[in-house]
Amino acid sequence: MGLLKGLIQVYTGYGKGKTTAALGQALRSSGHGLLILFAQFIKGNSFSGEVFSTKYLPNFAFWQFGRDCRFSSAIRDNIILCIECGDCLIGEEGPTDLDKEIISKGWSKIKEAIYDQKFDIIVLDEISLAINFKLISLEELIEVLKNKPSSLEIILTGRDMPEEIIAIADLVTEMREIKHPYKKGISARWGIEY
Amino acid sequence: MGLLKGLIQVYTGYGKGKTTAALGQALRSSGHGLLILFAQFIKGNSFSGEVFSTKYLPNFAFWQFGRDCRFSSAIRDNIILCIECGDCLIGEEGPTDLDKEIISKGWSKIKEAIYDQKFDIIVLDEISLAINFKLISLEELIEVLKNKPSSLEIILTGRDMPEEIIAIADLVTEMREIKHPYKKGISARWGIEY
Repeated sequence: MGLLKGLIQVYTGYGKGKTTAALGQALRSSGHGLLILFAQFIKGNSFSGEVFSTKYLPNFAFWQFGRDCRFSSAIRDNIILCIECGDCLIGEEGPTDLDKEIISKGWSKIKEAIYDQKFDIIVLDEISLAINFKLISLEELIEVLKNKPSSLEIILTGRDMPEEIIAIADLVTEMREIKHPYKKGISARWGIEY
Repeated sequence: MGLLKGLIQVYTGYGKGKTTAALGQALRSSGHGLLILFAQFIKGNSFSGEVFSTKYLPNFAFWQFGRDCRFSSAIRDNIILCIECGDCLIGEEGPTDLDKEIISKGWSKIKEAIYDQKFDIIVLDEISLAINFKLISLEELIEVLKNKPSSLEIILTGRDMPEEIIAIADLVTEMREIKHPYKKGISARWGIEY
């Protein structure tokens, strides 16, 4: 603990590579023995590859605050492919009471983790979605970021990251989509997109 | 082997997140038991976090084809910070005979690995640098990509990716630098950038 001069990183934009870059950053940092918390908002599916591979890494906590899917085990074992059934997604009707409860409890746990200084690096994956769905208060997040322990690195990901977050971040990368196989009709692939 | 419909991915641009996204992709995919080869060109430093953390992952090979640095062990243990001494970099004078030899041997090993179909995913990290320094022939790389086994996913990273590669890739993300702490005079950080 306390080995870093901790900054605030943001990965945003519409291209592939935001969660992926945060995962890669966490993988790299864990190689030096740093203590990692990778927290995912909205995404609660238990079939993504990172749910399993991060278990091999020492000092690596992986928390999810989102709904799972009824086909999870069959998708994980590549028996069926993810068809985006909606179980783990927030639909057009907006967040349900269950979403609100899951995210609210998750956000409380995150704030505790930040102030208790138990981690060197905390990733808040897809937090922009939680903000934009009004499940977490933007004003409160900004307060938390401004008052974070100085040795803690915080990494925020998600499309449409609010400008107020970009303004206080130290490192911001926009992932720009130049080409994506979705556009050719190829849907999310087992082993790659999840 | 052979579980994927393998595509060609490219991460390019000047922002942070290219190698990092490729690492994250490899981490995710390894969670499903896929066989990963992560090959780095030009970068041969043995002090980066990923050199250590990827050792924990099953079915994960990490190959480097580049020069190391005389301070490696001290940097790895965070006794001194990387000062970009030039040991592991190609300077203004261009590639040395040693660079040519290392990259040429590495490229031969990669071609073998592609045709022997021992991996599901092969990352060619910083390969655009090797191409742009004329250490690997662009024409040959294009031939190799066009004739890759159909179940193999190939991921290419590096700034200034040649247009000919982008043309045949299925998924291309440009990492755009919006803000970078280098511009504030903060140099590469142990635990984060390496």
